[in-house]
Amino acid sequence: MSFDKIDLFDASKGKRGTSLSKLLNGINGPQDLKHLSVLQLEKLAGEIRELLIHTVANNGGHLAPNLGVVELTLALHKMFDSPRDKFIWDVGHQAYVHKILTGRRETFSTLRTSGGICGFPKRSESQHDAFGSGHSSTSISAALGIALARDMSGAKGNVVAIIGDGSLTGGQAYEALNHAGHLAINLTVILNDNEMSIAKNVGAMSEYLAKMRTAPTYSKVKHDIEYLLRRIPAIGDSVANTAERVKDSLKYLLVPGMLFEELGFTYFGPIDGHNIPLLLDVLDKTKSVKGPVLIHLLTQKGKGYAPAERNADKFHGVGPFCIETGEIQKNATSAPSYTQVFGDTIVKLAEQNPDIVAITAAMPDGTGLKKFAATFPKRFFDVGIAEQHAITLAAGMATQGKRPVVAIYSTFIQRAYDQILHDVCLQNLPVIFMLDRAGIVGEDGPTHHGVFDYSLLRHIPNMVIMTPKDEDELRHMLYTATELNAPVAIRYPRGNGVGVKLQDCFTKLETGKAEQLISGKDVVLLATGAMVEPCKSAAAILAGKEISASVINARYIKPLDEQTIRQLARDTGIIVTVEDNVLAGGFGSAVLEYINSQNLNWVKVLRLGLPDKFIEHGQRGQLLTQHGLDDQGIATSVETFIRQFGARK
Amino acid sequence: MSFDKIDLFDASKGKRGTSLSKLLNGINGPQDLKHLSVLQLEKLAGEIRELLIHTVANNGGHLAPNLGVVELTLALHKMFDSPRDKFIWDVGHQAYVHKILTGRRETFSTLRTSGGICGFPKRSESQHDAFGSGHSSTSISAALGIALARDMSGAKGNVVAIIGDGSLTGGQAYEALNHAGHLAINLTVILNDNEMSIAKNVGAMSEYLAKMRTAPTYSKVKHDIEYLLRRIPAIGDSVANTAERVKDSLKYLLVPGMLFEELGFTYFGPIDGHNIPLLLDVLDKTKSVKGPVLIHLLTQKGKGYAPAERNADKFHGVGPFCIETGEIQKNATSAPSYTQVFGDTIVKLAEQNPDIVAITAAMPDGTGLKKFAATFPKRFFDVGIAEQHAITLAAGMATQGKRPVVAIYSTFIQRAYDQILHDVCLQNLPVIFMLDRAGIVGEDGPTHHGVFDYSLLRHIPNMVIMTPKDEDELRHMLYTATELNAPVAIRYPRGNGVGVKLQDCFTKLETGKAEQLISGKDVVLLATGAMVEPCKSAAAILAGKEISASVINARYIKPLDEQTIRQLARDTGIIVTVEDNVLAGGFGSAVLEYINSQNLNWVKVLRLGLPDKFIEHGQRGQLLTQHGLDDQGIATSVETFIRQFGARK
Ligand SMILES: [Mg+2]
Ligand SMILES: [Mg+2]
Repeated sequence: MSFDKIDLFDASKGKRGTSLSKLLNGINGPQDLKHLSVLQLEKLAGEIRELLIHTVANNGGHLAPNLGVVELTLALHKMFDSPRDKFIWDVGHQAYVHKILTGRRETFSTLRTSGGICGFPKRSESQHDAFGSGHSSTSISAALGIALARDMSGAKGNVVAIIGDGSLTGGQAYEALNHAGHLAINLTVILNDNEMSIAKNVGAMSEYLAKMRTAPTYSKVKHDIEYLLRRIPAIGDSVANTAERVKDSLKYLLVPGMLFEELGFTYFGPIDGHNIPLLLDVLDKTKSVKGPVLIHLLTQKGKGYAPAERNADKFHGVGPFCIETGEIQKNATSAPSYTQVFGDTIVKLAEQNPDIVAITAAMPDGTGLKKFAATFPKRFFDVGIAEQHAITLAAGMATQGKRPVVAIYSTFIQRAYDQILHDVCLQNLPVIFMLDRAGIVGEDGPTHHGVFDYSLLRHIPNMVIMTPKDEDELRHMLYTATELNAPVAIRYPRGNGVGVKLQDCFTKLETGKAEQLISGKDVVLLATGAMVEPCKSAAAILAGKEISASVINARYIKPLDEQTIRQLARDTGIIVTVEDNVLAGGFGSAVLEYINSQNLNWVKVLRLGLPDKFIEHGQRGQLLTQHGLDDQGIATSVETFIRQFGARK
Repeated sequence: MSFDKIDLFDASKGKRGTSLSKLLNGINGPQDLKHLSVLQLEKLAGEIRELLIHTVANNGGHLAPNLGVVELTLALHKMFDSPRDKFIWDVGHQAYVHKILTGRRETFSTLRTSGGICGFPKRSESQHDAFGSGHSSTSISAALGIALARDMSGAKGNVVAIIGDGSLTGGQAYEALNHAGHLAINLTVILNDNEMSIAKNVGAMSEYLAKMRTAPTYSKVKHDIEYLLRRIPAIGDSVANTAERVKDSLKYLLVPGMLFEELGFTYFGPIDGHNIPLLLDVLDKTKSVKGPVLIHLLTQKGKGYAPAERNADKFHGVGPFCIETGEIQKNATSAPSYTQVFGDTIVKLAEQNPDIVAITAAMPDGTGLKKFAATFPKRFFDVGIAEQHAITLAAGMATQGKRPVVAIYSTFIQRAYDQILHDVCLQNLPVIFMLDRAGIVGEDGPTHHGVFDYSLLRHIPNMVIMTPKDEDELRHMLYTATELNAPVAIRYPRGNGVGVKLQDCFTKLETGKAEQLISGKDVVLLATGAMVEPCKSAAAILAGKEISASVINARYIKPLDEQTIRQLARDTGIIVTVEDNVLAGGFGSAVLEYINSQNLNWVKVLRLGLPDKFIEHGQRGQLLTQHGLDDQGIATSVETFIRQFGARK
């Protein structure tokens, strides 16, 4: 395959909007593609890439995945009829082109900004977004549900799931393939194979796909086989059955996707996913195939933008960057991110403790494990997008004395609740969960906020849950976890630490013990993790209003520091809990439960946290402010509460 | 295959213990098998079947699965060296024979009774139970973790996962195969294929396995192929590569398990899983194979006990029964089970509402959907053991106007938290979850109690959670759910209803509205679901002690009936919440949150429910009593609380 690169952009085109040329300006919906020629579609592909690059350079977002599906998305909207025909985008971070082509071209500049276009398909945003997504490996299930409903209702329309090779490592994709193949239903699965999940894809399935990629072309093999078959002489009755099976078996050769064929799918491929006429041809042909079809496309992640082609991993999900150089805009603060500190710390601890191993579900970079992987390649395991497996695997290792550290985003731990409960906690095994991107994550929105983890984990027996006030405390918490003989989750936010000095040594933190940071007499702020800093500022604001507030760094969500809570409740009579988690079942709820169990009815508790609704996308700071979780918001809530209920009992 | 049946038992042997013959009496651990001949092992197999049948006839349990693995388990313990070699039993309900052979023969009569042998592998019970299980499809993950830890530590030992064809429909099994195949690690997976999960197995993989079962024997095919190959003449250079591929392709024929081979496993099979010498031979041979091995065994579920062979589904998990007839002991009460009432109700509603469809994850019978499946075969979907897929599938259908009812046990919903949150609730789709076997389930123990669902679901935005006080209310709740445009979970206990009359019509229950059953002035019992009846009795007991208690049937866990709670709090000043869920994050916690949010500090709340620990197995009534959740326990707790804190403020 040889791909033309689109021109690098003039600096003058770097401004939003100016780079839109005529063709794209005329595309206000899929119908506007119908009359375009292949050549025009190819030109349009270039224009779309420009828009993608400029928008993501400004707003941040998922660049490389979208650059890889420009031709595919054009071909889909040319050949099919959305919204009657339905496209289900697995994970969904590659649906930008689809959004641009379905009436959201003009608003695309608002991508991932508050009130603007969401970075993922969203039913409430457009009738063309047939099914919302955000986490991996659900598309075939949803598509199958839609197709079954269509058939039951006697309706018409094609249903197409678009799934990456990475998402195919998730077990749910296989559950759905297994079901669909068995039903012989009309359904198209497009396997968008770029040899990557976020990082390089892993697993036997990935190797299987690779074998297909390097196989001789379909037509060459077909010709040779026919030649060979002609030379097999006529055979007697006794082996006739076997001969039949030999022919069957040759299908295996002719059809490189035999594995999918065995699962009941008709396989087409592998096909160059950047060749528009070829794509149109195969989509057209497969429309008339009865039963489920799998089209295997080969695409290049980041295609058409040299920096992203060279480093698809970096440009998978990216912050604002310079188009000319591909340089990511540096954050103003020089404090290292929590992710980085975790990555350095686990390496340091692993040098001293040979039992420490690390596991990631397809995110060695995002979780900060790259350095560990390079330093201890034999103690590092990337299992693919397979959170369930990751956790039971860790439990298995823990039974043999290993200290597995499973590094996973808070939002993705939702995929493996049962494994945490059964395989780890019921057996009380010392597996450590590093829950990065907890709380509000910002621009990725409701599918990615890590705002349920306290509620999800704290009711599981044996579980210990910690959350650090800063990046140095994260280090001590990880160390402490490796010294505890229990399941431990450590939960920390996205982004930079608060900029404290990292200590040279590690301190074991007493289990279930909070830390008093500021001493006051009117009210106690019981702050968790990323809420500690704003609580400290809030205390300063309150001091200006003659309200003297203690600030406690909770450290442990479970077990609670009951003694401290009891003591402080006695001292001030007013406790304010602050968490970037939903209030329902969260940290404040745990405090209420404790106070209730002790019949400390005279204690007044104010719980600050997130409401019982899904939080939309937007800038993290903005969203925290909006929900009253910045210093000013906290101070105001506390002041109002105190004015209403008075200090001290 | 022709299997000898073991003799039906004399009635005189029906008593526990008397049926143990000499051979089994001498087996106190795996080492006692080492000197036995094949003939002796075969005799032992018969004795073990006797013990299994007698014990389960007394205690209830998983009979058919265990009858199917007698020879396999004997062969494993003969050829391997537990606990150095490790067996990981998927799901685990087929580990009875393993328990009998590993020092638990004498205590086996206590199976599933309080303080006795657990019905599932349990690390704390024996060093031979390498990994606990209870839910499906985790064994390969755990085995891989153990094998990796072994290799990292330079330790020795074989690791063997034993997984059924049903468990292979669960996506996690595939995630683990994908990972293991890629690693080329020494690991044995035994696929125990009986063409069943609990009911008849479904899906494309199952059809694939069936094809292998009916394929000609390995040696016949091999002979025929060699004959054919000899007749292919020498070929020129131009097609030499293809000829190579033809040979590769023929492997597909020689190796029926090519699908597993493609995933990196060396496949052996299919092999008669009841033929002890054959099993010993294949286990011996595969020990020296490098890399992961998959041994495909064909077994018969229920083997050796005619009633179970005829009806393996019924004898999968079974209550006490009569050995001679296979008749299940009828429960004394004549009230229909919740499961039955649900099964009848959904059929009735579906007759009126063509949009209603039903989905099960491999449990058409256990969930009560058999009648629906027979009445509306085109609206019924058994997806295999694939809870994640089941729920996203339902979400897909709901986007097209269907009303999917997903019937699933409370404990298994734990497998699909993320799908409930993302695919259903975030999109606010009207999917109905029927959570059977909620609360304490009894003999199946900690892996099967449904005691986390309130805490798991109530913090998810948009979710409506109901729980009926009796089997008639279940009907109205299901009807109400079909009329609501929101995700709804209905949660009900295992076993018989309370015996109320079933009404002819359906009533739509007001959303978030509780029902007052008894009016009192000293205290309010806010009871949920199965706790309503004991609360009514508790109120009667309390009345005898001059305590006048209101009893409220909560009906809704979410949204709470805030108005009623507020009013009753005002009336009595004391609220007692009663739930068969863990207290952490549960219903009582929701009530505390509400009272806190309203600053009703003067209300005294007593929360009755389950503690923050895993509940062991035992009789359901016993366990409820033990945790103070029977009428007497509730009455005592309430009385104590009132005596301590006084009635009225
Ligand atoms: Mg990919
Ligand atoms: Mg089976």
